[in-house]
Amino acid sequence: MAGVDQPGFKGRNSLMASELSYRRKPSSVSEMQQKKFSHLERKAYKRKLREEKLLAEMRKQKVIRKEKEEKERAEKEQRELKERCGRPYTVAIALPGSILDNAQSLELRAYLAGQVARAAAVFNIDEIVVFDENYNAKQDVTEFSGLKRSDRGNTQLFHILQYLECPQYLRKAFFPYHKDLVHAGLLNPLDIPHHLRETDVSDYREGVTLDKPVKSGKGAYANVGLKKDVVLNMSVPPGQRVTVKLAEQVTEKKNLNGVVVSPNEPRETAGLYWGYTVRLASSLSQVFKACPHPGGYDLTIGTSEKGKDVEQVDLPRFNHAIIVFGGLKGLEASVEADDKMQTDDPSEIFQHYVNVCPKQGSRTIRTEEALLIAMSTLSPKIKSAHTSTDNSKGQPS
Amino acid sequence: MAGVDQPGFKGRNSLMASELSYRRKPSSVSEMQQKKFSHLERKAYKRKLREEKLLAEMRKQKVIRKEKEEKERAEKEQRELKERCGRPYTVAIALPGSILDNAQSLELRAYLAGQVARAAAVFNIDEIVVFDENYNAKQDVTEFSGLKRSDRGNTQLFHILQYLECPQYLRKAFFPYHKDLVHAGLLNPLDIPHHLRETDVSDYREGVTLDKPVKSGKGAYANVGLKKDVVLNMSVPPGQRVTVKLAEQVTEKKNLNGVVVSPNEPRETAGLYWGYTVRLASSLSQVFKACPHPGGYDLTIGTSEKGKDVEQVDLPRFNHAIIVFGGLKGLEASVEADDKMQTDDPSEIFQHYVNVCPKQGSRTIRTEEALLIAMSTLSPKIKSAHTSTDNSKGQPS
Repeated sequence: MAGVDQPGFKGRNSLMASELSYRRKPSSVSEMQQKKFSHLERKAYKRKLREEKLLAEMRKQKVIRKEKEEKERAEKEQRELKERCGRPYTVAIALPGSILDNAQSLELRAYLAGQVARAAAVFNIDEIVVFDENYNAKQDVTEFSGLKRSDRGNTQLFHILQYLECPQYLRKAFFPYHKDLVHAGLLNPLDIPHHLRETDVSDYREGVTLDKPVKSGKGAYANVGLKKDVVLNMSVPPGQRVTVKLAEQVTEKKNLNGVVVSPNEPRETAGLYWGYTVRLASSLSQVFKACPHPGGYDLTIGTSEKGKDVEQVDLPRFNHAIIVFGGLKGLEASVEADDKMQTDDPSEIFQHYVNVCPKQGSRTIRTEEALLIAMSTLSPKIKSAHTSTDNSKGQPS
Repeated sequence: MAGVDQPGFKGRNSLMASELSYRRKPSSVSEMQQKKFSHLERKAYKRKLREEKLLAEMRKQKVIRKEKEEKERAEKEQRELKERCGRPYTVAIALPGSILDNAQSLELRAYLAGQVARAAAVFNIDEIVVFDENYNAKQDVTEFSGLKRSDRGNTQLFHILQYLECPQYLRKAFFPYHKDLVHAGLLNPLDIPHHLRETDVSDYREGVTLDKPVKSGKGAYANVGLKKDVVLNMSVPPGQRVTVKLAEQVTEKKNLNGVVVSPNEPRETAGLYWGYTVRLASSLSQVFKACPHPGGYDLTIGTSEKGKDVEQVDLPRFNHAIIVFGGLKGLEASVEADDKMQTDDPSEIFQHYVNVCPKQGSRTIRTEEALLIAMSTLSPKIKSAHTSTDNSKGQPS
């Protein structure tokens, strides 16, 4: 209270001025004029007015403070909601395309690629890296390879993975006939959130920009799998794949409006699984070197039956994780084949080198099986690394 | 010590007789004859002999006691080793054969069955039950089914599972040509411990009894995948599959000898995964009613995306567990189709009704994927239920 009174002592002149303004109010002036006041009475009256003004000021400050607190709390809640609903981190997997070369028929070869895509979809994988595990072996012309082209598996896996990730209504635009996709019609659909039917309602949709004349000042048209095309907020060359945030869904309007957003937005703001990107890496070391995230992968996990029991592994909080799988001969062979790797010991390359299936009944676990087994075990650990408030688990760098 | 002395008091006559035998020894007798002993001296000498004899007896007893203790300790160690190495419990899975009817080609139909067998092998499953999920629907003739025979999937899955479990060297004996097995050659091998090559060394081997004349008093011959046939310890009709414990592996002998044992023995005593049995069930309720174990399954787990998050489930110690998977329409449809079930709510039928993949990216998880995902999550829980010494987890009934 002393503090509130201080202005009166600090700047008396200014206070006097404000008192005068009070006195100038018609009611106060007339009140003053009507009565003859003594000097003491005038002084008391002035003090009373001053006190009232200060109290009013205090009340105003209190309301402002309260509003500010309210706003801050709302912002915090929003942030928390986004953190809870959105998913800031990404998980990638890497595997050699050579696993396809071991399939018994062309149909089963394609089916195997489909199994990889399904596993990625089930476990919300954001990026699949297909690496060449025979990087140096190919240069070694003395090795007998018959007529088999050892790099066919990589590109076919790459193509089928991309094809399956693409929403059905966009496939005609992006996938002309290709021999790699001959058996793609037999594969199981991924059925992921962005594979939307015409009647499905969604804030976001994947689309392709169309070669359709636009009015000046208006953006390009895009087909997002709805009856009507969407007018975008910017001009984009035709034939581009875009992620569109639909502004409104009023059906009476001639055109729908949409905003082009980052393909990461549905994941980051709404926690939606929005499919995966596919990348070809010429060797195992390129898996890490050509990482699309500026800081690289900050959590690397290798899987092998020679690794540590996964049950004993706790994962730290991370931004971008990658889980690497070996081929027929295991991850050891992939590491050995890569000259650029400083070591032949895979456990030195990865932060965690884990065995995802201790006590396996079969002598071998196939890569397509290992994908499901590993992700099933690692998923709860990934989740708990991001929900846990335990600081000892470390923060992402 | 008092106890050891007692024989002296109990049977004095017999003791005297033994003393006399001492005296009859030539050396003692000559000693006695050479010297003239007083009555007291003779008495003292006798006492000395008696004491020496008792001490000898005590030493003997001590050695026997020690040997007995040694033996008991060894037996206990053996028992503990068996408990540690052996696996007393079994894990079964049950799934509808109708999952095959959804495959896109005959080749992929067989491949799907192969995936089920592989998943069972990787996770040491002891029994696979193939149940008919359309038990009542089949009786409903008004339902449109086209030309599709809805029960074909069950028998084909049954056949392929049996075929893949059988060691390669026995397949000729047990699997003549059958249309269900046309594409079985394309399937991935299980590579489980009892699929032994000729050069592999193993205490146990699977075999088939042969139609070969035997000497009187000798058991039947069996082919166990070795160069030489094995003479069994009993006569078994030809063409039977037997589990043989090889008595010795001396290669010089004309014939090897073997003992017919229970197919459970390799698991129970050595903890070896010894393949699975396959059973057809005409409905979901028959999965439980026709259980081959006398007490039935004492742990039943149902899997569904409508179940409880598997991370929150702790399994009790059990003897015989069964994990049941649904088909295309989920376990709910299988329960509804079964009139014999008292309820339509699957969570009432199973002790645990779990969701093995919360936060799945794909709208659906296929049964063959669910097998790997579920077993990957449940395996550590099954293991810890049997290694944990925590009594609060409960004992098998």
